[in-house]
Amino acid sequence: MERLTPHDITILFLSLAVLLGSARVFGEIARRLNQPTVLGELLAGIVLGPTVLGNALPEYFQLLFPQAGGLVPALDGLTTLAITLFLLVAGMEVNLSSVWRQGKAAIAVSASGIVFPFTVGLAAAWAAPQWLGREPDANTTVFALFFATAMSISALPVIARTLMDLNIYRSDLGMVVIAAAVFNDLTGWLIFALILGLMHPPTGDETGVGLTAAATLGLTVFVLTVGRWLVDRALPWVQAHTAWPGGVLSFALALGFLGAAFTEWIGVHAVFGAFLVGVAIGDSPHLREQTRSIITQFVSFIFAPLFFASIGLKLDFAAHFDLVLIVQVMVIACIGKVLGCRVGAAVGGIARREAWAIGFAMNARGAMEIILGLLALQSGLIRERMFVALVVMAMGTSMLSGPVMRKLLRLKKARGLSDYITSKGFINVLQARDRVAAIRELSQAAAAAAGLDSAAVETAVWERETQGSTGVGDRIAVPHAQMDALSAPVVAVGLTRDGVDFDAPDGADAQFIFLILTPTGDDGAQVRILAEIARTFGREEMRQSAIQVGSYTEFLALLRTDAGNPTWDHPTRDPSPVMDSPTMPRG
Amino acid sequence: MERLTPHDITILFLSLAVLLGSARVFGEIARRLNQPTVLGELLAGIVLGPTVLGNALPEYFQLLFPQAGGLVPALDGLTTLAITLFLLVAGMEVNLSSVWRQGKAAIAVSASGIVFPFTVGLAAAWAAPQWLGREPDANTTVFALFFATAMSISALPVIARTLMDLNIYRSDLGMVVIAAAVFNDLTGWLIFALILGLMHPPTGDETGVGLTAAATLGLTVFVLTVGRWLVDRALPWVQAHTAWPGGVLSFALALGFLGAAFTEWIGVHAVFGAFLVGVAIGDSPHLREQTRSIITQFVSFIFAPLFFASIGLKLDFAAHFDLVLIVQVMVIACIGKVLGCRVGAAVGGIARREAWAIGFAMNARGAMEIILGLLALQSGLIRERMFVALVVMAMGTSMLSGPVMRKLLRLKKARGLSDYITSKGFINVLQARDRVAAIRELSQAAAAAAGLDSAAVETAVWERETQGSTGVGDRIAVPHAQMDALSAPVVAVGLTRDGVDFDAPDGADAQFIFLILTPTGDDGAQVRILAEIARTFGREEMRQSAIQVGSYTEFLALLRTDAGNPTWDHPTRDPSPVMDSPTMPRG
Repeated sequence: MERLTPHDITILFLSLAVLLGSARVFGEIARRLNQPTVLGELLAGIVLGPTVLGNALPEYFQLLFPQAGGLVPALDGLTTLAITLFLLVAGMEVNLSSVWRQGKAAIAVSASGIVFPFTVGLAAAWAAPQWLGREPDANTTVFALFFATAMSISALPVIARTLMDLNIYRSDLGMVVIAAAVFNDLTGWLIFALILGLMHPPTGDETGVGLTAAATLGLTVFVLTVGRWLVDRALPWVQAHTAWPGGVLSFALALGFLGAAFTEWIGVHAVFGAFLVGVAIGDSPHLREQTRSIITQFVSFIFAPLFFASIGLKLDFAAHFDLVLIVQVMVIACIGKVLGCRVGAAVGGIARREAWAIGFAMNARGAMEIILGLLALQSGLIRERMFVALVVMAMGTSMLSGPVMRKLLRLKKARGLSDYITSKGFINVLQARDRVAAIRELSQAAAAAAGLDSAAVETAVWERETQGSTGVGDRIAVPHAQMDALSAPVVAVGLTRDGVDFDAPDGADAQFIFLILTPTGDDGAQVRILAEIARTFGREEMRQSAIQVGSYTEFLALLRTDAGNPTWDHPTRDPSPVMDSPTMPRG
Repeated sequence: MERLTPHDITILFLSLAVLLGSARVFGEIARRLNQPTVLGELLAGIVLGPTVLGNALPEYFQLLFPQAGGLVPALDGLTTLAITLFLLVAGMEVNLSSVWRQGKAAIAVSASGIVFPFTVGLAAAWAAPQWLGREPDANTTVFALFFATAMSISALPVIARTLMDLNIYRSDLGMVVIAAAVFNDLTGWLIFALILGLMHPPTGDETGVGLTAAATLGLTVFVLTVGRWLVDRALPWVQAHTAWPGGVLSFALALGFLGAAFTEWIGVHAVFGAFLVGVAIGDSPHLREQTRSIITQFVSFIFAPLFFASIGLKLDFAAHFDLVLIVQVMVIACIGKVLGCRVGAAVGGIARREAWAIGFAMNARGAMEIILGLLALQSGLIRERMFVALVVMAMGTSMLSGPVMRKLLRLKKARGLSDYITSKGFINVLQARDRVAAIRELSQAAAAAAGLDSAAVETAVWERETQGSTGVGDRIAVPHAQMDALSAPVVAVGLTRDGVDFDAPDGADAQFIFLILTPTGDDGAQVRILAEIARTFGREEMRQSAIQVGSYTEFLALLRTDAGNPTWDHPTRDPSPVMDSPTMPRG
């Protein structure tokens, strides 16, 4: 086999650019529709792959994603690297000790959330394998075991993400769910690794079934005990004695690659080794947040979208779309998981409504199920139609999770300051030179943004203003009022380089004037917005940047990329691009 | 061509782990010897490649780095991606406007620093091509043009790194050098791209020579004018309207890949397009520091070491080592560049000693020369012996740069607090309960670390202490003295959870006691160390972490990974793992 030709290299970069760009565009569309980003990324691949482009314009598809030549192994190597790094990162997010810390409830949900769907899946696949997509030449026992595992797996990162979106990540319920999902993830992958071992890989490998299973179990126990201890001892040494952060990054990745090579060698997929090493590394209290975030961000924002989009290139989703199979898989998956976790939660002493919410939270399969399905497809365990069914089920359960929980727990979606400011409500250069004129100008902008009568707004704001000035110091003023006609808060922002006297305690003229309108009675909203303004614009460097913006877009960009207010600690602002992106804070 | 087999995947991860691990280990050794990290990374590849492992244990070399099968294109694709991303990052560090800002001196150094070595190289290669390694079948004109370009190229990142090491990055001299190197980099790559075009790639591409040259120039002008403007307009929009930081990361990488595909398509290497796009993106004031650092760090700490180590795998350096050629190349390279820049500096009105220093600063070729040589080798422009000569020249000029400048400018290497604390001078749990005992205990530790008499240390420190207590508040005490017998500062650190009364102004007992010994008369050292202690331990969260350390290693790790005191703004502490790593602050 020769090196890549210049033509290969041209196509390599072109296809990477198209894949990454489309994954982002479709991911953003999904995000706007309040859907998981990974859904968009998968869709991008389906559009670019055999399903759409390959059918509509086969010559362009062949040009962009050639099915023969040196590019096939090159792209295969790249996507294998991407998925392995993604599992390393997913492992780093697993926090083993949290399972024990959450006590009885977490253990009951974990155990019941695996045993129940596993049993349901196993029984169904054994009783009626031909209905569930077992191919005629497949071994029923192995197929049933795989199907049972596919039913019982969870997706820790997507679950964490949903909990953050709902603002209940750090609640008791959130912590129970996360702890249970950690345990679930770990066990699910271990069982799947054992099944891959059972299958005895077709490509001339001498290791026997028993040996593979023993090696997998042995590696798991070793990495989670001795390996964890060794990593914990090694990390401070690496950080103290090698270049920072290059030393610790190389250490983590080299170790992950070694784990990947080992599990691939014993007949289990590379991702399992990387996942285990990730758990060992992520568990050490000596791992610095910066190391974690460099790896996590590059992997989840670049490699993960490339990987998920590349799935769509592999097969024609329309041709292998089997609606009956999909419905069956979906029903069995939901019944097993939701009921199992709900029962476990009840045993753990959790009230009925919250127990159901836990069931639906744990039901999200996310990207993990897709990876599991892809590995099973590649090793010949399942065929295309079952893979498509698993992908649809993974997406369906993930999309269901948030809305159902929101309904059960009666939650509202958390929103931030940037969600309340529209281009109509932004005045980059206020004409006003005094308080009266400034409030009039901003009232008009806010009224236009909210569809209210501007005179009514102005009157209400002035009424409040006369009770005491809203100049709060630091060159910030926050005139505000509650309005009956509103259903959601509206904030108008006016910037003035000259400053307007708002009678602030520190005597400084206001340069940043936020006119805040909230629905009557919703004091909580008003307080939250005031707190966010204080937190964001209380810092001098932020004010210096903000006073220089040239447009609404630049102001919004500044708010959304504010480094002192990092978005990944911020559940309201889409902290991650992939549904399963493991950028959650530590439990 | 088929997909990768499980055996291929096992070897892929094994070879990645070995490459990355060895590159780090050899890089660290180089760093300890005050040599560029990239030297170690290259050496790791040479040891693992045909030069050493391939000769000593050919069967292991064949196993780890197979020369046939699907892994060849897979690894080729990966290293091509790595080098392209590296050039994208290098481009992002180029700050075009700095050239104009530094005025006459920078322009004179830039121009003379290109024209002079180019002329010298061209003349030498034309006059005596056979002596300079032109192969019999090569075109003399193209060879001479290449050789001239190779002589005139600079390595902006290694130059920036050397200036930071010497603590003169932000001096006037430093800014002139950086501005000149920016211009040099850009012009050098443009000339090389034109030469690649001139060569008319052998693999059936219909674009003619003139077309390639025109397209290259056209792209350069387009990207640096319209492209730059478009990127600057697009960035705020992307940051305001897409998930942060995933949106802007995808935007930057997809654009870089597109540029790479385009230049590869017109017959110039992919790296040139990525570099140009990098310049356009890096130039926008709207690019956030966080975006830059996510890309930069992952690329320069993971991809760059993999790429530089992989160079050693490509050929037998010992077999192609031609000492006469190396000496000739080295001499011509140094004469052309050092003299050219020295003359330019003199024209720009810079004094003699500083003008020589600028010459040697600009003389560093670093990783850029190696990349240029590799591309020339791959496109058949030069042979192995010339490539080896260029690599040795690149390393030689880079290693020369720092020491010569230090001598010329009479500088000392900047050091930080962590350099003065040894394990002997660290007491994790002080036995002492009062000031007298604490100073005695720490004096013994400091004396042991410095090889002094402990009674003399104790007397000197007490003498200072009686003039006024050194408890400075925030639970920190800094007893100190100047000692005749010392040649460099020594700091002993004692931690005590119970606290020792040091009569601090805030009344709090000291938990962090730093006993500082400096050479008599070196008041500067004392002040610098005190300032660094205040800056580092003045923050409550740092004190909370520090009081919990379990060992000297953990304390050192904490100091060296301190997030509030980031190492990449810190010229003293090896901010980057590769010699050419572009993690320099913006000019």
